[in-house]
Amino acid sequence: MKSLIVINPNSSEDVTRGIDAAIDPLRKLGLPIRCLTLKEGPKGIESQLQADLIIAPMLALAAAQADAAGYVIACFGDPGLHALRDQTWLPVVGIQEASVMTALTLGQRFGVIAILSRSIPRHLRAFGAMGVLDRMAGDRAIELGVTELADTDKSLNAMIETGKRLRDEDGADVLIMGCAGMAKYRAPLQSAVGLPVVEPAQAAVSMALGHISLDLSHASQRADHD
Amino acid sequence: MKSLIVINPNSSEDVTRGIDAAIDPLRKLGLPIRCLTLKEGPKGIESQLQADLIIAPMLALAAAQADAAGYVIACFGDPGLHALRDQTWLPVVGIQEASVMTALTLGQRFGVIAILSRSIPRHLRAFGAMGVLDRMAGDRAIELGVTELADTDKSLNAMIETGKRLRDEDGADVLIMGCAGMAKYRAPLQSAVGLPVVEPAQAAVSMALGHISLDLSHASQRADHD
Amino acid sequence: MKSLIVINPNSSEDVTRGIDAAIDPLRKLGLPIRCLTLKEGPKGIESQLQADLIIAPMLALAAAQADAAGYVIACFGDPGLHALRDQTWLPVVGIQEASVMTALTLGQRFGVIAILSRSIPRHLRAFGAMGVLDRMAGDRAIELGVTELADTDKSLNAMIETGKRLRDEDGADVLIMGCAGMAKYRAPLQSAVGLPVVEPAQAAVSMALGHISLDLSHASQRADHD
Amino acid sequence: MKSLIVINPNSSEDVTRGIDAAIDPLRKLGLPIRCLTLKEGPKGIESQLQADLIIAPMLALAAAQADAAGYVIACFGDPGLHALRDQTWLPVVGIQEASVMTALTLGQRFGVIAILSRSIPRHLRAFGAMGVLDRMAGDRAIELGVTELADTDKSLNAMIETGKRLRDEDGADVLIMGCAGMAKYRAPLQSAVGLPVVEPAQAAVSMALGHISLDLSHASQRADHD
Amino acid sequence: MKSLIVINPNSSEDVTRGIDAAIDPLRKLGLPIRCLTLKEGPKGIESQLQADLIIAPMLALAAAQADAAGYVIACFGDPGLHALRDQTWLPVVGIQEASVMTALTLGQRFGVIAILSRSIPRHLRAFGAMGVLDRMAGDRAIELGVTELADTDKSLNAMIETGKRLRDEDGADVLIMGCAGMAKYRAPLQSAVGLPVVEPAQAAVSMALGHISLDLSHASQRADHD
Amino acid sequence: MKSLIVINPNSSEDVTRGIDAAIDPLRKLGLPIRCLTLKEGPKGIESQLQADLIIAPMLALAAAQADAAGYVIACFGDPGLHALRDQTWLPVVGIQEASVMTALTLGQRFGVIAILSRSIPRHLRAFGAMGVLDRMAGDRAIELGVTELADTDKSLNAMIETGKRLRDEDGADVLIMGCAGMAKYRAPLQSAVGLPVVEPAQAAVSMALGHISLDLSHASQRADHD
Repeated sequence: MKSLIVINPNSSEDVTRGIDAAIDPLRKLGLPIRCLTLKEGPKGIESQLQADLIIAPMLALAAAQADAAGYVIACFGDPGLHALRDQTWLPVVGIQEASVMTALTLGQRFGVIAILSRSIPRHLRAFGAMGVLDRMAGDRAIELGVTELADTDKSLNAMIETGKRLRDEDGADVLIMGCAGMAKYRAPLQSAVGLPVVEPAQAAVSMALGHISLDLSHASQRADHD
Repeated sequence: MKSLIVINPNSSEDVTRGIDAAIDPLRKLGLPIRCLTLKEGPKGIESQLQADLIIAPMLALAAAQADAAGYVIACFGDPGLHALRDQTWLPVVGIQEASVMTALTLGQRFGVIAILSRSIPRHLRAFGAMGVLDRMAGDRAIELGVTELADTDKSLNAMIETGKRLRDEDGADVLIMGCAGMAKYRAPLQSAVGLPVVEPAQAAVSMALGHISLDLSHASQRADHD
Repeated sequence: MKSLIVINPNSSEDVTRGIDAAIDPLRKLGLPIRCLTLKEGPKGIESQLQADLIIAPMLALAAAQADAAGYVIACFGDPGLHALRDQTWLPVVGIQEASVMTALTLGQRFGVIAILSRSIPRHLRAFGAMGVLDRMAGDRAIELGVTELADTDKSLNAMIETGKRLRDEDGADVLIMGCAGMAKYRAPLQSAVGLPVVEPAQAAVSMALGHISLDLSHASQRADHD
Repeated sequence: MKSLIVINPNSSEDVTRGIDAAIDPLRKLGLPIRCLTLKEGPKGIESQLQADLIIAPMLALAAAQADAAGYVIACFGDPGLHALRDQTWLPVVGIQEASVMTALTLGQRFGVIAILSRSIPRHLRAFGAMGVLDRMAGDRAIELGVTELADTDKSLNAMIETGKRLRDEDGADVLIMGCAGMAKYRAPLQSAVGLPVVEPAQAAVSMALGHISLDLSHASQRADHD
Repeated sequence: MKSLIVINPNSSEDVTRGIDAAIDPLRKLGLPIRCLTLKEGPKGIESQLQADLIIAPMLALAAAQADAAGYVIACFGDPGLHALRDQTWLPVVGIQEASVMTALTLGQRFGVIAILSRSIPRHLRAFGAMGVLDRMAGDRAIELGVTELADTDKSLNAMIETGKRLRDEDGADVLIMGCAGMAKYRAPLQSAVGLPVVEPAQAAVSMALGHISLDLSHASQRADHD
Repeated sequence: MKSLIVINPNSSEDVTRGIDAAIDPLRKLGLPIRCLTLKEGPKGIESQLQADLIIAPMLALAAAQADAAGYVIACFGDPGLHALRDQTWLPVVGIQEASVMTALTLGQRFGVIAILSRSIPRHLRAFGAMGVLDRMAGDRAIELGVTELADTDKSLNAMIETGKRLRDEDGADVLIMGCAGMAKYRAPLQSAVGLPVVEPAQAAVSMALGHISLDLSHASQRADHD
């Protein structure tokens, strides 16, 4: 039986476990979902440099999954999204793209909770390429390093504070968590801020399952038709 | 057990049957899906006037479904989308909005195949409100009346010709069928034009099932929290 | 003799009286102007749900005015604007649309003073459909309920404070009152904030009189020509 | 008694007479309207260079009108629009800006009929500054020189042909005449193309009369308040 | 030997000297660069009115430079940019346009440090005409008058404070000095704010030298080809 | 002495030689310019997959140039542009970005002459990220394969034909060659089409020399300051 393959392109097994738990409610839809860790990746992807360098091993890992029915790239920034679409006919969904498309059906202006502010220009390039900047309220960072992120109270509080600024200063009415592996904060964040919160891996797996069920393939392979 | 309720806001049972067949591949995801016809609706919705006038009976029909787990409004134009979100906490997905969000994950510029050109300004207002006009290649009508639409060869040929113009003159690399109930044309259209084709009711039901599974609610109810 | 018909789609006679007083300076232009209250409307329109539900009775009220030379829909949100254009060849102007077009000739970035923040997503959808978001500085609510709005000092002070935030934090150089029936605050607001202030019913009646004088009809009836 | 001053910034008395006839239906609104020719202007304004050079004499001509209640600058391109707003508190309306704002209330996408294609980049800079490019269907030139423009049949036919291309190839549902002094073609053009046609001097005078009646002043003088 | 001609369109010799010093590092690229003061200009250009009125004498001054290899217009606002392009085949670069294009290669969102807030609407019209508003973080004024600008400590401190607000409140990651003649503040400003800072005269001279070396001419002369 | 390093990320020495010849006129500005071929690259870069895979070796090649004063990435598509900025403080210019910024100073709407239509979605994502889509007239491919590109007459004719369509159908008034190594066609193309033509390697080297002379560094290193 075929499976949806979710690739965490960083090498943190903790993040992969977080993703696996996040998407568990979607397993009831019937298709097996396997979450893989890219062992060649860095502990976390914090720059365009790191994002670009994981593409080659990620493509190889993807190609090695003989049972793949489709792929989710589970790093906010969608590294290698279009490269993987060039490599395969199967549905490929990126968590950044999917979380934005999902948020656009839940509110009028989305706010992004980033980890580090140095990622924000990267996000903005992506939102510009998606053509959705008119729907963005803001993108703000909690600005926590790896050690601080291990402190769950501190992390949640920073997300809540940032979410409230996105709501009150920027006018967001739906929030996107700009990072994979933090789904456990979704419910308390939503409750504290009073806005819908999109967890990107959930949004992407949900979209990928739909694409697979409907046999929806992307345009990147078009030239092979001609 | 709860069901996803799909409302066809026109009174054509044929269209409802077409929608029901279109979304059938998504029934394997587990949630019951019930497709309803709005008997108060016109035979087809061709103007903003008709679209606005079905909102009141559609809201009543929606409110009467005690088993609803969520709703899909199955008319391209998404009449009453935000009104229904004002009425209920449950997920509400419009087929126009969902088809655009889905198309944005499959190609860079979408083309819309409309039935009548008089609907195009209405579509453009909606795409402007969605903030996605930079991703639209074009919106072109097959310009067939009701009698001609009953001729399936003629309809398919007109869609193929229009799809090729959207591809060659406007630069579309993904197509959206701008009408519910025509899913049977999706495969041959896709094959003839060589581009992915999004059938809007399928896209919306797929999104709605994801929203229900993830317990994703929209922002319209936010004020009730405050 | 024909008249311009101004319809207040909520059932508050006070609001209608406020609109009537607001547009009085335009009576010197020669055309009779009659302001009507939609008795089927709610006391105030605060949601998309309420806005959509007044369309049917408003269309009926409009159709019953045998002496109409044109119409103004006097609710910020322009409910039924395009439906009424589908119903009649006569000029139809919405106060939201007209106030924005007027503001764009008075300053570079407009700020909107809304009553309740829950209306803002609705405004943003409309401004997106109008394609004018690059000219919007911000949209902020005074957040006063019906009882508080009866207190004129409190209302004016809230508008002045909100106008100053739009000017100083958002960069607005022209303000739009995002509500009908409050023209009495226009002069003191303008004076206190030092920016031009557009009262939407005035803007719409002014435009409608021009359209009538020039025999300018809208595009919605185009299909009937073909 | 005060008058609205309409300045034709080119030196062609014929054009001024055309403008005067065009705006005649608006004289019934009560305010005197005087149309002036800028004798220092060129025969026609076809470049940014010519447009910029008429600003100084136009400002002087405007300043010399002691009875002015407001101004209309009657050249498509709105030369000196913001300079004149810097010079006076009185309402100042440009025919390009006013025709666009008017068209936006009549259709979803406007098409512009220009005289020469070399003016189109100038138009596009203006539409970009106005922030309305998402509403523009196209801008096409009839490409007729002065001698050919004297041939009324040839001119009208070229406008009709260009208007049909804007409608059929570009998707315009409202047209703007990109030139002053040609109001006599408006009715037959509208009739032949089946779309509303905005004559820019009419649109501007209509707006200016409204601004004067409502005592609406622009933001350019704001700094003098501070 | 030909020279690049840099025209300061205000009459302040101090500003011209500041520009001359600013572009000195570019003299090593080989082409002589001559900086001229427009004696007919005002002491400083603070309004659209002043900007428009210098165009005629500036065009004459430009035409009188027989050795010109190209031109830079050294006033933020680029007065007469397109008029001068209409007058000559030689490369013409405006410091506002060039500084924006340069900033877009250095960061994702630019912030502008203006002198007076009354200039900001003028800037926004220009950025709209350039089509780059999605890349603008903000435009904020130091709000200093001529006397205060003579105080270098006060000026630098105001620029640093404004630069930090653009960085922290608006999200700018590259700054543009919205005024000519202040290059001496570039290094300390950059160092204090920690963002790249573009001095517009430097950016424009650099671009102009490239255009001259590559024999790149602009499109304004196109009609003369036809 | 330091040098500007130009990296051709494909392995074709012919293309490198074409780039070297193209930028030769800029050597007179004084800084040595060295053009390198990335031997690990494919013969040509035609997909996002190929573009992404050259980033790792290109970064290594860049890091190995001890004499670098700055870098130009000479592939239309700018692979690794932001990754290289993450790796070095030195100026880094991409030919796609630089050609667009240059074209924006030469005309109002740019047209891109691509080699293959399958590259166009990639271009559009980049133009969207740059925020310049409102200035794009069109992007059209000559659709020639490697063998046909060796035929210079055929290539030039295809470029001229495509350039004329961009000019006449899409409204371009400046053209960008969407490929490195074809500078020899620039002059005849410009002459045949009558529009300015930007060769991207020339534009990028010109910008890079300016950035180096002015000591302009990018924002990507900002976090290291903090």
